[in-house]
Amino acid sequence: MSAELKVVFQPSGRTVHVLPGTTVFEAAARAGLLLRAPCGGKGTCRKCRVQITRGIGEPSGACRATFSPDELAQGWRLACQTPVAKSLVVLVPEGSLFEAASKILTDADGMAVTGTPAVQKRFLRLPAPVDTDPVADLARVAREVGHLKAPLPVLRQLPDILRAASFACTITTAGDHLLAIEPGDTTADAPLGVAFDIGTTTLVATLLDLAAGRELAVAATINPQVSFGDDVISRITLAREGDGFVEELRQSVIGACNGLIGELLDETAVPAERILALAVAGNTTMQHLFCGLNPAALGEVPFAPVYARALSFPAPELGLAAHPLAQVYVFPNIGGFVGGDTVSGMLAHRLDKAEKPTLFVDIGTNGEIVLAHQGRLYASSAAAGPAFEGARITCGMRATNGAIEKIVIDDAVHCNVIGDADAAGLCGTALIDAIADLLRLGIIDETGRILGPDEAPGSLAAAVRERIVAVNGDYAFELVPAAASKTGEAIRLYQRDVRELQLASGAIRAGISIMLRKAGLAAGDLDAVLLAGGFGNYIRRENAQRIGLLPDLPVERIRFVGNAASTGAKAVLFARELRDQAEEIARNTEHVDLSMDPEFQMEFGMAMMFPGEFGLAMSLV
Amino acid sequence: MSAELKVVFQPSGRTVHVLPGTTVFEAAARAGLLLRAPCGGKGTCRKCRVQITRGIGEPSGACRATFSPDELAQGWRLACQTPVAKSLVVLVPEGSLFEAASKILTDADGMAVTGTPAVQKRFLRLPAPVDTDPVADLARVAREVGHLKAPLPVLRQLPDILRAASFACTITTAGDHLLAIEPGDTTADAPLGVAFDIGTTTLVATLLDLAAGRELAVAATINPQVSFGDDVISRITLAREGDGFVEELRQSVIGACNGLIGELLDETAVPAERILALAVAGNTTMQHLFCGLNPAALGEVPFAPVYARALSFPAPELGLAAHPLAQVYVFPNIGGFVGGDTVSGMLAHRLDKAEKPTLFVDIGTNGEIVLAHQGRLYASSAAAGPAFEGARITCGMRATNGAIEKIVIDDAVHCNVIGDADAAGLCGTALIDAIADLLRLGIIDETGRILGPDEAPGSLAAAVRERIVAVNGDYAFELVPAAASKTGEAIRLYQRDVRELQLASGAIRAGISIMLRKAGLAAGDLDAVLLAGGFGNYIRRENAQRIGLLPDLPVERIRFVGNAASTGAKAVLFARELRDQAEEIARNTEHVDLSMDPEFQMEFGMAMMFPGEFGLAMSLV
Repeated sequence: MSAELKVVFQPSGRTVHVLPGTTVFEAAARAGLLLRAPCGGKGTCRKCRVQITRGIGEPSGACRATFSPDELAQGWRLACQTPVAKSLVVLVPEGSLFEAASKILTDADGMAVTGTPAVQKRFLRLPAPVDTDPVADLARVAREVGHLKAPLPVLRQLPDILRAASFACTITTAGDHLLAIEPGDTTADAPLGVAFDIGTTTLVATLLDLAAGRELAVAATINPQVSFGDDVISRITLAREGDGFVEELRQSVIGACNGLIGELLDETAVPAERILALAVAGNTTMQHLFCGLNPAALGEVPFAPVYARALSFPAPELGLAAHPLAQVYVFPNIGGFVGGDTVSGMLAHRLDKAEKPTLFVDIGTNGEIVLAHQGRLYASSAAAGPAFEGARITCGMRATNGAIEKIVIDDAVHCNVIGDADAAGLCGTALIDAIADLLRLGIIDETGRILGPDEAPGSLAAAVRERIVAVNGDYAFELVPAAASKTGEAIRLYQRDVRELQLASGAIRAGISIMLRKAGLAAGDLDAVLLAGGFGNYIRRENAQRIGLLPDLPVERIRFVGNAASTGAKAVLFARELRDQAEEIARNTEHVDLSMDPEFQMEFGMAMMFPGEFGLAMSLV
Repeated sequence: MSAELKVVFQPSGRTVHVLPGTTVFEAAARAGLLLRAPCGGKGTCRKCRVQITRGIGEPSGACRATFSPDELAQGWRLACQTPVAKSLVVLVPEGSLFEAASKILTDADGMAVTGTPAVQKRFLRLPAPVDTDPVADLARVAREVGHLKAPLPVLRQLPDILRAASFACTITTAGDHLLAIEPGDTTADAPLGVAFDIGTTTLVATLLDLAAGRELAVAATINPQVSFGDDVISRITLAREGDGFVEELRQSVIGACNGLIGELLDETAVPAERILALAVAGNTTMQHLFCGLNPAALGEVPFAPVYARALSFPAPELGLAAHPLAQVYVFPNIGGFVGGDTVSGMLAHRLDKAEKPTLFVDIGTNGEIVLAHQGRLYASSAAAGPAFEGARITCGMRATNGAIEKIVIDDAVHCNVIGDADAAGLCGTALIDAIADLLRLGIIDETGRILGPDEAPGSLAAAVRERIVAVNGDYAFELVPAAASKTGEAIRLYQRDVRELQLASGAIRAGISIMLRKAGLAAGDLDAVLLAGGFGNYIRRENAQRIGLLPDLPVERIRFVGNAASTGAKAVLFARELRDQAEEIARNTEHVDLSMDPEFQMEFGMAMMFPGEFGLAMSLV
């Protein structure tokens, strides 16, 4: 094991341990801080500025070209051009964060997008009614802010509250709906929103201050529906057995979401009634189950969902802990297997406005692939399975404490473990790293077979060669010896783990190939590949290319865009106008059903093969 | 007592007993059947055609001019030109009814108005999803009928019901809201609506078949809030004492409305779930209390209501027994004392489209007066008190069984009693009749004083003169001797009853005068006076003019338009487009606040004096 270096990011205080040579940019991503990088990490856009306040080293050439000598002396660096050589404390200015934690969203080109928050509070000093102005109470309020619809409980409070407060009051509105009226000025208690990313495996909830346009807290947990099966098909299969199972699945995910809300509220010490708007992005099946809609028809051709356009329901109807009048926005979906999470991601990165060929890939249990080209949008899904999330891998685990998240194999095996702990298993990114390096070293061949110690190239370091162990007629590669493992059992990459990765990677790569062909493009024509998903954040791009998951094109064109589903869900809470655009995206995207594509099986078969050392992945493209 | 004649109307079977000489038109009104009469009963418009099937007498000249000899022999007559001389059976063709019990509403000029019912059921045979048509279930339905929003419970049923019924289903929609989906064709169970007229004294509910555009049943009862006070001011005063009283008043009227719904359902043997739309028209205070909104601010200048634009709430929120997704439409109001019932009436008779000066008067406990002139609309209210509904009159009662509803005093006293029973009291119309005839006979003078037997004109028949009796220093007029009365006590008109009528009539007449002056019109300039309200139906126009209640103009220009508040409430259920027009009427009507008008007190004082025998009522106009 290599010595790991500690990197502390301020002002958040988030801390990670990384292998020497890891860039500050990558370390920040590991800490959940995605920095701006429209150049793809080439050091040319100069957006990822950070200030190193402890552990300052020599600046790189790109840093010298960017900052003045004074700034360099104060520790200012470009994160993507600064490798970690010792332990650091790094100050991250808000303006360098990718998901600008501000009301101002940025589109694919970094242009500012502003909008109206889903819920607003306003303090009004209204004139009291007099002879010459006998207008009705509700109309008196509406005169200041535009037409208002008031639900009965609020309307009933209206006259008393207005008069008790001498017509100085605070109104809370969602569009033209009056959600609350309070005496005096209560705008200091900002309205809050919660954005949910409902993944097949992982649930993420973000608490938002809708007035300031900032994130207050994030919480994540496993989707407890995994106990019913780890992919969408298993959930659909269960749902087909009866509405009782749909209700069980619904309660399971809603219960977990309420748990996340509870965490967010505990962390920020506010009551649930302050949550006034919610947005939910998930794949079609997840959104169906979240709403208690039976996804049975998604289990058979032609995979017809129950709904397509966006939905909106009061939080209590869905069973969510929030203000009783809070509305929950559920993203529109594109098709049976291209859902609201994809629409959300497309919205977050404005694929509808992309001017050059852009590929968007959300790598999850269900992988979604979107291609924007010449004003047209194509979307498809590929069932990658949960291998990238560490499942179905012998020593796999989620990217939590104890998971190896990065592996470098050269003349030794270097592992970086989350939480600076003993390794308990490996997560998806490390799986890719390991297989990529084993391909480079010739320990795994193009068919995916792990070679025996005698078959492996002679150039191999002895310390590496001895990691190859025979297991039941196949070979495995030992990443962590039993003595160094937390569990006391060796952490190994087995032959069948390589097969699982070949299936997962092949499904996505075949999807990409078919999409490119559909648009008449070669991989090299792509201006950008946007990698989304919690997993996408941490992937080593060269390694993803080495295993054939991502197409062969200059690595700087591959950009991390973070949890795009969450970003879009936050976006529609910060700017409700974007809901119309989400609808438009969903309507205008052509759904490419890979299962219906006669060439998919052939592409899939080829994409499961690893690319040659210097070559492209095999493809019909 | 004169012998009364029985008139049976078919096909309804409604039966009334009337004094000889009463027209068939008036008898029909008494039976609740308002016939068409754009000419005002002059026999020129020929709309009030009826067929007398038993008791056929000689036809009048107007009837001879209208019908062929064969038709005359078959009993066809104009109802307004046919006095009742013997007991009759009368067949009323649907086309002769004023409130056309059909989807086709008519405007002031008799033009047909058609529209979209508030709720519609449609049977759809949808194509099942196939490879080439994988569209979502909700979109599949919406493709046939336009965009649909589905509440959660309906959306949850959607996939199962569609598939159970092989995609042949019946949808129930309210605008773009999907209220229900059922397997197969259930359109035979038409969607029903209930139109409420929420009067200060009387509640009327009408059950409607929204598919056929017909009335199915009508039920009425006393507004139980009268136990808290018989006018709106008393209710407001109570509400000012606290929200608990508002809730008590709300429960009281909602309970009674549910009682009416129960009657309607019993009569038609349908379940409450069939009621899918409701509409409520009442004065501003009544609508506030119906919704549980505190009308306290209506109790003081400047009488600001809680809301002005129309409201819509789910029936369960208001506590009404109907389908859980049924929406209750509550009319917009114009001002603190000109409410949704007036807007409803104006809509029903399209005052917004009146081309000639038109006065609309709804005579109730709170009288509303609307004037349409040159595209402008003026509305005001006058607190008439409940005298016209029989309250505050010594022997007064509502127009129910046992009430004298018509009185003729010539050389004797002729009374017509509702239900062919012994008289128990007199209702508002009879009060006007009695005072008008006593004015004509000189027994009451212009100041309203009942003269003693010695002061009264010498021409008086002895049988009439002996009805004048001295009571506590004043005089009273005995309408029914104790021996002929149901209660065993004489039914008399007392001096203070005349004063009550002077107050009630004067308030309305003063309002009319001020409205006319506002528009620069004399009474004779009016093209039409539309008399609305349950009471307005039965009034004798000449008598109403004699006491000064209605302005002096040719009697045929005064037309009965029935319960206009109910008509408008039905209209918005039969044609939801009319809701926009109701909003426009409410917004465009100028509210004339009589209490703010410096000349109102003077007008009121003068209007309380009765007109001279041949003269006009005193007025500044």
